[in-house]
Amino acid sequence: MREIMRGLFIGRFQPFHLGHLKALEWILTQVDEVIIAIGSANVALTFKNPFTVGERIEMITRVMRELELINKIYICSVPDTCGEMHTIWPAYLRHWCPKFDVVFTNDPLSQLCLEYANIEYRSIPFFNREKLSGTHIRTLIAKGDPKWRDLVPPQVASYLEEIGGIERIVKLARMEKVI
Amino acid sequence: MREIMRGLFIGRFQPFHLGHLKALEWILTQVDEVIIAIGSANVALTFKNPFTVGERIEMITRVMRELELINKIYICSVPDTCGEMHTIWPAYLRHWCPKFDVVFTNDPLSQLCLEYANIEYRSIPFFNREKLSGTHIRTLIAKGDPKWRDLVPPQVASYLEEIGGIERIVKLARMEKVI
Amino acid sequence: MREIMRGLFIGRFQPFHLGHLKALEWILTQVDEVIIAIGSANVALTFKNPFTVGERIEMITRVMRELELINKIYICSVPDTCGEMHTIWPAYLRHWCPKFDVVFTNDPLSQLCLEYANIEYRSIPFFNREKLSGTHIRTLIAKGDPKWRDLVPPQVASYLEEIGGIERIVKLARMEKVI
Amino acid sequence: MREIMRGLFIGRFQPFHLGHLKALEWILTQVDEVIIAIGSANVALTFKNPFTVGERIEMITRVMRELELINKIYICSVPDTCGEMHTIWPAYLRHWCPKFDVVFTNDPLSQLCLEYANIEYRSIPFFNREKLSGTHIRTLIAKGDPKWRDLVPPQVASYLEEIGGIERIVKLARMEKVI
Amino acid sequence: MREIMRGLFIGRFQPFHLGHLKALEWILTQVDEVIIAIGSANVALTFKNPFTVGERIEMITRVMRELELINKIYICSVPDTCGEMHTIWPAYLRHWCPKFDVVFTNDPLSQLCLEYANIEYRSIPFFNREKLSGTHIRTLIAKGDPKWRDLVPPQVASYLEEIGGIERIVKLARMEKVI
Amino acid sequence: MREIMRGLFIGRFQPFHLGHLKALEWILTQVDEVIIAIGSANVALTFKNPFTVGERIEMITRVMRELELINKIYICSVPDTCGEMHTIWPAYLRHWCPKFDVVFTNDPLSQLCLEYANIEYRSIPFFNREKLSGTHIRTLIAKGDPKWRDLVPPQVASYLEEIGGIERIVKLARMEKVI
Repeated sequence: MREIMRGLFIGRFQPFHLGHLKALEWILTQVDEVIIAIGSANVALTFKNPFTVGERIEMITRVMRELELINKIYICSVPDTCGEMHTIWPAYLRHWCPKFDVVFTNDPLSQLCLEYANIEYRSIPFFNREKLSGTHIRTLIAKGDPKWRDLVPPQVASYLEEIGGIERIVKLARMEKVI
Repeated sequence: MREIMRGLFIGRFQPFHLGHLKALEWILTQVDEVIIAIGSANVALTFKNPFTVGERIEMITRVMRELELINKIYICSVPDTCGEMHTIWPAYLRHWCPKFDVVFTNDPLSQLCLEYANIEYRSIPFFNREKLSGTHIRTLIAKGDPKWRDLVPPQVASYLEEIGGIERIVKLARMEKVI
Repeated sequence: MREIMRGLFIGRFQPFHLGHLKALEWILTQVDEVIIAIGSANVALTFKNPFTVGERIEMITRVMRELELINKIYICSVPDTCGEMHTIWPAYLRHWCPKFDVVFTNDPLSQLCLEYANIEYRSIPFFNREKLSGTHIRTLIAKGDPKWRDLVPPQVASYLEEIGGIERIVKLARMEKVI
Repeated sequence: MREIMRGLFIGRFQPFHLGHLKALEWILTQVDEVIIAIGSANVALTFKNPFTVGERIEMITRVMRELELINKIYICSVPDTCGEMHTIWPAYLRHWCPKFDVVFTNDPLSQLCLEYANIEYRSIPFFNREKLSGTHIRTLIAKGDPKWRDLVPPQVASYLEEIGGIERIVKLARMEKVI
Repeated sequence: MREIMRGLFIGRFQPFHLGHLKALEWILTQVDEVIIAIGSANVALTFKNPFTVGERIEMITRVMRELELINKIYICSVPDTCGEMHTIWPAYLRHWCPKFDVVFTNDPLSQLCLEYANIEYRSIPFFNREKLSGTHIRTLIAKGDPKWRDLVPPQVASYLEEIGGIERIVKLARMEKVI
Repeated sequence: MREIMRGLFIGRFQPFHLGHLKALEWILTQVDEVIIAIGSANVALTFKNPFTVGERIEMITRVMRELELINKIYICSVPDTCGEMHTIWPAYLRHWCPKFDVVFTNDPLSQLCLEYANIEYRSIPFFNREKLSGTHIRTLIAKGDPKWRDLVPPQVASYLEEIGGIERIVKLARMEKVI
């Protein structure tokens, strides 16, 4: 059974957007199963990380069910290490996630940590990186620009509305003087 | 959409056994969706908690896929609070898990914490409690008694073998002088 | 006995100034008793948080005794949550403080956290907000401008001198290049 | 002003009982003011530490107000150090409490830690130690023996009833198989 | 230069005794350089771990200087992981210590953790295990039996006397009711 | 034996450079033995703190052996305190290091913390401070300017090459947009 090739897709998914979805679909052309690892799982209620890990699990699960990908993925939560102890982060990945063969990430710090720990990783082709980024989407939301809706799966858009996520991002952006 | 009634099923699932499965099936008669919350997610490699949360996610997911329950459940990870700060554990549940309406648990400490935080909980009918307990199953494994296999779903039995879980439990039991 | 209405007044009190005192007096027109909750209780020796929580307890107690308010207030210490885990902060309030009916705060992040946890809060009218702010007072002290003395209760001014607080703030301001 | 001699009285106060009160009264014959330092402030909802630090602040404050001792005492909260790092506990005392001249404690570990840090301490004469101990009182409560009422100040007895403290101790005792 | 073969020798060294020294000498027949990794570096002032890591560094350094082994060894400090998160301990070893080729340990839990992380380890032949054990030596000290002096290097014996280590162990043993 | 006068030299040593070496040589004219305390021992893989404490132990040890200073120094690791709890840092120094008589440091925050804890410290004369600073050296490395080699002991230069340290600093500088 262990012949199944597994990729680990690490991200913060604040929120899960179409860039993540395209990346996931591309990774699924490279491996059989994907572990979606939600990073900074401990953080919430900041502009950079507005949603709890529970909320992120829910939004991702809804999309996966809708697209009938639920049987090919695992969702898991990875907290930050304390005090910038980056060297132990790869051991965190192993602890908090099911076994994987290779990590997919474009984040240079993640790549450096994985190199330090001799864990194989690969880059992901970018899909309209300028727009399909969490920061861009949260900034659009904070500005009241409805174009953000085109950049996330419809299940995410409706979930954010359900839980008051739009209002939360607006407040956090003001509070941290992002806009 | 929010009319779906959700139950949160908290446990350590060391390992996920038939008692858990029966409890889950019963909870699914009470609510529409179940959040399976894996507690003590930070602990591993002890006799009480031999498996990492990643390993527990994998064993539960395999069973859920096989039984075609995957679209009715969410799986999430809940670490322990530091320094016996039990009063914040209910806030941990909310942070680490998708939203839920009621918690299902028979653990008296969990019940006390939830009461303290005014969160609704319900007990679960026991199914052959004497045998269907994690401690009993790990003790059978530690003693080399093959009867443990009848007490877990077949997917869990084969997963434990795949990852060397039997040998790990035997070693931990010796180390901690449990047997 | 539980008919007494209690307000929780959360702040960092670095140092306790006349704005805090006026706020407290106003809150005492709304409720019978006030819990003074000293936030960021773990932090000290930074320009933003120069004083230990012990020092803050002492300066506040001296003022309360002098004004004969000591029988209407409780003083308690609330540490920060680790790793920006804002969602559990309301549970921290409950753990570290006597029971309260409503929180008084103008801090938007505190308000957001309390909303998330369904805890009632109210805003406090500002009293000369521009001058009666901790940052303004610490900046005056750092610049050697004696006008800060008019902005704190006399007990606080003399306490700061007693413990070398002026010199400490000057050093911290230089160190962090605030002035 | 600093001529006032201050004693620090460290305890867990689970709950605050007549032994504590007699000790406090005795300490007040030795020094002018007493800092009541509530230790293990982070722990709650265990048989050894049933009450939150907020609850302990409240019960102690009620007694101090009643006995008109409130102007001679300070109440503060001291969390445990992480991972048995006992050597830093004396620095915790200094951080979490107003300045003190001498510590009053009979606990051998506290005494050892204070010696290690060159902080002066004194023992307290015991008053009916056998009965006036937290463990004994909690055990009486757990057994349903009403004699515990004679061992705590009346304000504490009524406070415990108000918050459901009797029932909580009974549950915790059962849960941890203390009785 | 990297042809030098390095062994990592992990222990708590409470205190450093002749069993440790013999083990070290034996390891030096297997590799060119040894990293002496002081585990549980955060703990002190308990019967199991009476000495701070600084004290342990000093006693080991004195012995190494005397035996002219100082140029063949490195001394480093390894704290415990929080909350029994054993799976990240091997990453701790890598972070807190200079690079090593192989770990020398007889501790079953350490071995299990290293196996989990695919790090090579070897056992060490025991030398009079019954007597040359930290627990045995601390128990002798606690009982006032002078035979412990024959079980540690003379530099350790005199160091323990210098810092009041004998008295400390006696107190801790009484406190924890070990004797 | 305790007549030996010991100085504690605290720094982050990222990397150990000629300024550190000259400071150490100067301190050795003031005291008999020096404890080299590696601060921020928990941090690594950031531009400010690129190297693990293990790597820093190794580079310093190599220099000390080469210069035959190894019998006059102790090397130890001091992690940061959590959550800016600066008041307990002096207790950390005592815990993580062998006993010392006086601290040598030019860092204003360290000096403030030591003052708070009544620990004696002295300043160190600067030697070409502009160039002999860790930040300057890391910036030269990040820019590909080979002049950094003249600013560190040759053992450090070759060690950095051995472990890929140059490349690591270049990556971290890009990642954090330092250059």
